[in-house]
Amino acid sequence: MSEVQPTSPNVALLGRPGGRAMLDTPALVVDRAALDRNIAAMAAHARAAGIALRPHIKTHKSVAIARRQLAAGALGVSCVTLGEAEIMVRAGIPGVHLTSPPVTAAKLARLVALARAPHRGLSVVIDHADTVAALSAALLGASAPLAVLIDVDAGQGRTGCTIEAAPALVRAVQDAHGLRLAGIQAYAGHLQHVAIRAERRERSLRLAERLRGLLRQLAAMDLPVPIVTGGGTGTFDLDPEARVFTELQVGSYVFMDVEYLQALADGRNAPPFETALFVATAVIGVNQPAYLVTDAGLKCFATEGPRPEPARGAPSGSRYAFFGDEHGKLFVPTDAARPALGAVIECVTPHCDPTVNLHDFYHVVDGDTLVEIWPVDARGKR
Amino acid sequence: MSEVQPTSPNVALLGRPGGRAMLDTPALVVDRAALDRNIAAMAAHARAAGIALRPHIKTHKSVAIARRQLAAGALGVSCVTLGEAEIMVRAGIPGVHLTSPPVTAAKLARLVALARAPHRGLSVVIDHADTVAALSAALLGASAPLAVLIDVDAGQGRTGCTIEAAPALVRAVQDAHGLRLAGIQAYAGHLQHVAIRAERRERSLRLAERLRGLLRQLAAMDLPVPIVTGGGTGTFDLDPEARVFTELQVGSYVFMDVEYLQALADGRNAPPFETALFVATAVIGVNQPAYLVTDAGLKCFATEGPRPEPARGAPSGSRYAFFGDEHGKLFVPTDAARPALGAVIECVTPHCDPTVNLHDFYHVVDGDTLVEIWPVDARGKR
Repeated sequence: MSEVQPTSPNVALLGRPGGRAMLDTPALVVDRAALDRNIAAMAAHARAAGIALRPHIKTHKSVAIARRQLAAGALGVSCVTLGEAEIMVRAGIPGVHLTSPPVTAAKLARLVALARAPHRGLSVVIDHADTVAALSAALLGASAPLAVLIDVDAGQGRTGCTIEAAPALVRAVQDAHGLRLAGIQAYAGHLQHVAIRAERRERSLRLAERLRGLLRQLAAMDLPVPIVTGGGTGTFDLDPEARVFTELQVGSYVFMDVEYLQALADGRNAPPFETALFVATAVIGVNQPAYLVTDAGLKCFATEGPRPEPARGAPSGSRYAFFGDEHGKLFVPTDAARPALGAVIECVTPHCDPTVNLHDFYHVVDGDTLVEIWPVDARGKR
Repeated sequence: MSEVQPTSPNVALLGRPGGRAMLDTPALVVDRAALDRNIAAMAAHARAAGIALRPHIKTHKSVAIARRQLAAGALGVSCVTLGEAEIMVRAGIPGVHLTSPPVTAAKLARLVALARAPHRGLSVVIDHADTVAALSAALLGASAPLAVLIDVDAGQGRTGCTIEAAPALVRAVQDAHGLRLAGIQAYAGHLQHVAIRAERRERSLRLAERLRGLLRQLAAMDLPVPIVTGGGTGTFDLDPEARVFTELQVGSYVFMDVEYLQALADGRNAPPFETALFVATAVIGVNQPAYLVTDAGLKCFATEGPRPEPARGAPSGSRYAFFGDEHGKLFVPTDAARPALGAVIECVTPHCDPTVNLHDFYHVVDGDTLVEIWPVDARGKR
């Protein structure tokens, strides 16, 4: 799958002073210093807590950002789609872990091809006995076994088997040809955005208690599970306290979107992460008295969560509203100066993961300057 | 900007009987016969009504589909982003019209480059005097003038000048160096989904009356506007009746999504278009008693409108709900047979335009067979 990346129309701005405000819009913008501070803060937290990091790249889908996370000490990356895992493995990223079970014949064939190609510690979750059997059969004759974790439903009800069903599945993997039992996964997606920290903590610790029971049961059955993986940006400081996870799959901390900024805005426990991701949009319509019209709409921002929040270039107190596929409304306070036709405004992204997936490039800025352009390598990869 | 398209993982299924149900999911699926019937029905309607078609390719972003529309008699295509127009012009598509005003220095530079390259009748809208001046200055020394239409706000309040301000802008284009006055545009986006046909008709005809007044005024000022463009799938049969438009910018009729199927579901006046677009998703989780888990979430479907509707492969009466970035919930009636782990289900797309923009390929089917794979050429192009 050789792919030539298309070229961003902003290449000519690289290194040019003030280039950030001249970006051809709409454009995804990442503040490199803020990104690196977020990566360093999570790495320091994990080191202090004695827990490993396998950050989730579903958020950024970028080899360049994965490399920065690895350089800060991460032992690998987590991927939700097989297409993401293929991109990461082919880029030489170590410790690639697939967090959603591959099930169809098409996916199992691709997974087996990936497992037979050079990789540096690929692992995958399974949550059903039929998949254990199918993957084992598909790996017939493989030179090395594939690392498998059993996906346990942490209460979200999405993927994962019940905690009660887990021991039998763990046993099935242990006994299956071509598979190597590597651990269990329990991702509490439903707890990440619980707005009250005390409730988030209480529910996280209760889940940990149930997982601890499962681990005791597996130990008694002589089924070693070296890895216990889970956790997210919403519970990054609660999961280590539970002392059941060996590693965290945190993702959104690299960017911090409106959704997480709202959910984690608990005064005394504000997370040590800052906004690093924006979408730059230009004012293209000034004919309406009540608002300005911008060139970023619902093909540029995730629409299922909160709204984008105007930041750099917009008067304080401005609000953004969707206005169709390719346009937005920018409401500016009546006592503020109206941005001019053509002015570039940056917005904090509403939900970072699906916003990133709408863009081909990160325009990497250092202050006012465009310093690098990184492809969104795994955009749209399933 | 030379671009090598990545390869769909479904290439191996081309021509294989039953391949449609074996697609590597999630996958965008287009029913070629239904697509062609929709294109033919709109072409026949336009011919009978004596109105031209310049279909909007923001819906499909595909050169292959644009060619089918041209083969059925369309005189060109409409594009909302300059990136779409670049793709269409470079593919040799004639009559490319840009329906949103280019404003920033970056966009004007790209537009001028496109206008100086070989094209077969490029046109663009403007809605502000500053842009008339800027584009005229940027085109200094160009060998041929660029066709410009004045964008008039049809009541949606998005792009476009007021009807009252239009004559002065039309005059400015007429007088500007490097520009050729080609017409006016009035797109009534706000009327397309008005659910009651009688109201849609009444408001469309009222708008037409106002535009007719503008055209009389321009004629009296000796400002010829040969083209009057606008209209959409929601008013395709009302706009010709108004006898003010010379051409229609209809887009969604090629696919018919849940949004339009709901809006136009007026018994006696059901439109002659049928669903031609689906997203194929696989059942990847069967551990929950209340629902199945699928592999298509909010990175595969537009989320700002109605929900996807389960169709082929799903028991009648099934419902779909979003379940995060990469997963969906499929609720199946209790008395129906549950689809098996790995089964492929197709869903009607909620809002077709932003759904298509999330995919790299159309998997083109004829009955049960995958017969072609078309790239979504202008996906993500701004």
